[in-house]
Formats: sequence, structure tokens, C-alpha cells
Amino acid sequence: MNAKEEALCLVRRAVREMEGYVPGLQPAPGQRLVKLNTNENPYPPSPRVIEALRSAADGTVRLYPNSEATPLRVQAAATYGLKPEQVMCGNGSDEILSLILRAFVDEGDTIGYFQPSYSLYPVLASIAGARTVSVPLPRVARSKEMNDIPVPVVRAKLFFLTSPNSPYGVVFPTKWTARLLAEFPGIVVADEAYVDFADESALPLLAANPRLIIVRTLSKAYSLAGMRAGLAFAEEGLVREMMKVKDSYNVGRLAQVAACEALADAHYFRVTRDKVLATRARVAAALAGLGFTVLPSGANFLFAVPPAAHPAKPLYEKLLARSFLVRRLGGPDVSDGLRISIGTDADMDALMSAIQEETGGGK
Amino acid sequence: MNAKEEALCLVRRAVREMEGYVPGLQPAPGQRLVKLNTNENPYPPSPRVIEALRSAADGTVRLYPNSEATPLRVQAAATYGLKPEQVMCGNGSDEILSLILRAFVDEGDTIGYFQPSYSLYPVLASIAGARTVSVPLPRVARSKEMNDIPVPVVRAKLFFLTSPNSPYGVVFPTKWTARLLAEFPGIVVADEAYVDFADESALPLLAANPRLIIVRTLSKAYSLAGMRAGLAFAEEGLVREMMKVKDSYNVGRLAQVAACEALADAHYFRVTRDKVLATRARVAAALAGLGFTVLPSGANFLFAVPPAAHPAKPLYEKLLARSFLVRRLGGPDVSDGLRISIGTDADMDALMSAIQEETGGGK
Repeated sequence: MNAKEEALCLVRRAVREMEGYVPGLQPAPGQRLVKLNTNENPYPPSPRVIEALRSAADGTVRLYPNSEATPLRVQAAATYGLKPEQVMCGNGSDEILSLILRAFVDEGDTIGYFQPSYSLYPVLASIAGARTVSVPLPRVARSKEMNDIPVPVVRAKLFFLTSPNSPYGVVFPTKWTARLLAEFPGIVVADEAYVDFADESALPLLAANPRLIIVRTLSKAYSLAGMRAGLAFAEEGLVREMMKVKDSYNVGRLAQVAACEALADAHYFRVTRDKVLATRARVAAALAGLGFTVLPSGANFLFAVPPAAHPAKPLYEKLLARSFLVRRLGGPDVSDGLRISIGTDADMDALMSAIQEETGGGK
Repeated sequence: MNAKEEALCLVRRAVREMEGYVPGLQPAPGQRLVKLNTNENPYPPSPRVIEALRSAADGTVRLYPNSEATPLRVQAAATYGLKPEQVMCGNGSDEILSLILRAFVDEGDTIGYFQPSYSLYPVLASIAGARTVSVPLPRVARSKEMNDIPVPVVRAKLFFLTSPNSPYGVVFPTKWTARLLAEFPGIVVADEAYVDFADESALPLLAANPRLIIVRTLSKAYSLAGMRAGLAFAEEGLVREMMKVKDSYNVGRLAQVAACEALADAHYFRVTRDKVLATRARVAAALAGLGFTVLPSGANFLFAVPPAAHPAKPLYEKLLARSFLVRRLGGPDVSDGLRISIGTDADMDALMSAIQEETGGGK
């Protein structure tokens, strides 16, 4: 064995044996694609955000950021009707998820989640040396059927409830989450990255449920994927424990500034969100008209299963050849569908024309 | 036990029982302090950085950053004479340190380091459920005595070598680090946050030592503490394994832009660094003239032990009352001294006058 091989043997076995998480493709510089694969917001952030960023980009970036992101916690608390002590800020919600494992999950513990859901969870579990138990999530045709999904019976330290689910887009009703909290004795993490596009969230349950952690992001509805800002809401004592395991300066100065301004501009938020919702409704109807099965979505994407004559894989490739990048995930329960981010109306019109031409639908 | 207490019992015991890392005090908004406690650079980053930040602060922040920070890896590789595949980027070097534990340290493993050194290491060890072994670091009066420090004999998976050390500021000679690599069989992490202010680094050892990981930051010499950008250099295979355990988008778009520009402006870097070095030499001589014992420093701070008649604790408080914030760390091997960041010449002149008045020195 040579020195390089010896060095690699010092890597934890759990890490050596795992595959890293594979994020959605990012186009190369200069590559012109209609990017509908990672659920970014098609609209820029509020002009107030851009202005604040430009004015904060000065010599003070030589100084460390506020280590607890206090102004952002205060703003988030105001926006969501919480106390600042109930809020933790992270370097995107991915970091929040990772910190939650650091705070709650010991080697050998079990984490639970629905399958499909965010494919980062099993990666985080591998890193933590944790076991996983996944519960099949049935597909529903209408939102209200979500109430009928049985509350999973799992022995686990922590359960990730992705609501809206990704890639299905379906929303767990608040009442359903209350049942989960009543029946599951561990930590419930409501991963609500997409919830700003939905009608219901777990937020009303927070006050009475100290085992609930709600995870939010500024990456989607607030158009700040590039700035990395995520939030966790939980009981104060739990937030204090989670804060212990974060890096001192996990959220940069400009990320804090951008996130504060984005949350403060509630009007802009509503306007862009409503545009996305209107486009989503229109695209869902159009896809259904072309014979797609479209799951009810509370997110800024649609999970759509093409008609049997036009399977997802070749359709994905045909669309890519025409410069439309959507997402096709692996696994038996998702590979028959495409997860399509909601873009601008113009982008979605172009996509729908391409789909219509490729599937010969609508004739 | 009520519901809140029950929820807290779900926190990992290792986390419940640990204290979080306590970063250096940050002045409240509006509090006017000469801030010499967290080793920030007194000079702003290169004007190219500010310009690039302002121009990157546009609607594209809605898009995720490059997940591997490829342009930054390419720039760092060019700056340091490496291949991009030997570079990993992090959300500050604190994140890099944390990722190194995630990649190499299993529960029950041991990590080693000198005492004193960066007090984050034992915190990271607690989080990982790892043991620690600390080796007393003798104080040296002259740089060349660092060669005489015995290479520690420890049974550990990984050894953090902080060079320049914090808070002492002393530099481990490259030859000494080569001996450590030859005698210690685990991963050697050369934590070189301050090395840009030193004459020697472990960089020449990288090519021949696949068990060496070098950690750098843009927070100090490049004046980007607020942007969060750190770097790790290691053998390609090791970098690949470390990349598996990072969040997909751990370095934001603007942080990548700022770090690239800062590294690219080598002239500005040299000019500001040389200013800091000149000020450091002057302040070290002045402190020695006032009867302080000043350790030889290769960092942008000085560790200075005041004369016996003016112990560190009351002196720290007197300086704070006069609006000079320096750092006094806890522990028997450091509490007799002050760690003083190198500020602008004007700030240091003012500080020296205050010290002279408080200690009656120089009379």
C-alpha cells in the first residue's frame, strides 16, 4: 500500500463507503439553458435586497459577522410571530439540517422520513453513522387525500417531514402534522423549504410542541439561493442547544443583510409568490391537458408523470436537447415523473410548446 | 418532567453537557471600540473585491452558487501552485475544521493538539464524541527555539498543528512539521489561519505528504472575515472524500466572488500585509520597552505578558474602560498575557499611549 492509499484509509469508513449528495446540474458558464431543475425563483429578490447588498459591500466585510445573526433573528421573529430566541439562522437550510443531526443524532440512532423526500437525509445519516427508516409515501390525486395518509409508526430519534414534499410537491395538512407529533415520540423536523408556496404549515403547532423543529429557507420564495440563508424555528431551549453545534460565524455579513431585507419586504414577497402560484396553476392545467398526471403541488415545482407513450427518461433527454433542463430523479417511485420548477411565464410557455411538440399532445 | 424538559432530553448527551465555543466579543452597534480582539485585518479588502461584490450583487443571487466553488478552486490553485483538485473551499476555515472531523474522526477516536491552541478543537471533538489529548506548548523567547520543541508522541487519529499558534503567535518551522509528519502516523492538520503573516508554512510539504491537510482562511490577511471563505489543501483523493461531507452549496456566490478577487490581487495583498508586519515589529518593540514579555509572532497579533506589577486581568479591564478591546483568554497557560490584534498605526499608537499611562512604563 502506498502513502496515498494509507492516507485514504484514515478516512472514516462511513464516509469512504458513501456516495456524496449529488445536487441538481448547474449549467456551465455560457451554457444557455432554461433552468427548471433546482427550484430557484425565476424572479430576482426585492430591489431593496440588491440595494442593501451593494451598500453593505464595503470595507466592513473585513469584520466578522454577528455570530448569532441577531438582527436576522429579530426580523424573522417579527415576520413569523415568534421570539428571536426561537429562531436559529444557518448557511442555507442544508446547514440547518446538518446541525440538527449534530445536535440530536448519535451514532447508531435512527432517523425516519418518507420515501420519496429530500435525498440529502440518508446522506446526512451516513455521515452521522445513523440508521434510516423510510416510509413509502403514497401518491395522492387531490390535496385533501393527504389527510388519509397513515401516520408512520417508526422507532426513530427524529423524523423528517418534508412539507411540501420534494419531489411530489404535496403538502401535509397542519392537522396531520399534529397527529404525527401526538403519536411519534421523537423530534419532528418539518422541513418547509417550499412552504411559502403552500396554504398550510406546521407553524401554528410550534407553541405547543417543544419537539417540533421547523426548517425554512430564503433560497426559494425569497430568491436568495446564492446567498445561503436558512432558518430554524423551535422552542428556545432547543434553539440554545442547536446553537452550540454551529460554527461561530456560520452566516456571513452580506447573507444576513440580504435575508433581513428580503423578509422585511413582505409586499414584494407576496407579489412574486402570487405570480409563481398563478403560473403553477396554469402549467398544471396545461400538463393535465396533454395527458400528464400532475400531483397537487404546494411548492414552486410540479411533479408530472407523462403519458405512457412518452416515458420520462427519453422526454427528459429530448427537452434537454432543446435546452430545457428539468429534474428527473432516480428510484422506482420517482423515475416515472419529471420535477419541473416553475419559471417565468415566458419560459413555461416555451417549455409547454416543446413538450407539446415532443409528445404530440393536444392534437 | 414537562414537555420542554422531555424535548431537551432528546438532545445528544455530548451536546447537552458541552459548552459551546465562545467567540471574541463583538461590539454592539454604535459601541465605539478599538477592536483588537479577533484578529481582523485593520485594512479593507482590495478595491477590486468591493467592486466585484457590488457588481455581483444583482438578480443572479436567486441562483445557487457553484457547488464545488470551481472558479475559486482554480484561482486558489494558481495562487498557491497547486491543482484545483487539491483545493476544497469552505464557509470560513471553521467550517473546514468541522468538515475535517466529519471526514476523519469517528466517535471514540482521539484528536491531538498543543495547549494552548485554537480553543475550538475541543468543542469540535465534543460534538464528534471524540477524545482529546493536549500537549503543553512551551513558550519560546526566540523563533529559532521552535525547532527544539519535541515532536509530540500521541496516539491519535489526527493532530491539529496551529501555525502560527494562537494565542502565542509562534510559527512551527517547516522542518519541524516535516518531523511531525514523519513521526506521527495520523492526519496532520496544519491550521494556518495566520500564516500569511509568517515566513514559513507547511505548503512545501504537501506534495510528498498525503496525510497532510493545510487549512487557510481569507478572513485575516485578505480582510474577508465577514464573507466567510476558507480553503483546505490536500492530496486529491483526500479532498474528494472531504467534499463528500460538505453541504452542496457551502460557499455563497458573493463569498466565492470576493475570495477569487482577493486572491487575484496579489499586489494589494502584499502591500497590506507588509503594513501589518511593520506595525507588528514596532508594537512588539514598544511593548518590550514597557517591560512586557512579547512572544515572537508570525501572526497579525502579539501575545504579550505585562510586567508583574500590572497583571493582565486588571490591565485588560482598564484598557476596555478606555475603549480598547483586546483578548484575554482563560486557562493557566494564557491568562497571564494579552492577545493584541495588530490594528492601524493610529490605533496602535493610541493603544500604546494608553498602556504606557496605565502601567507607568517608559518613565
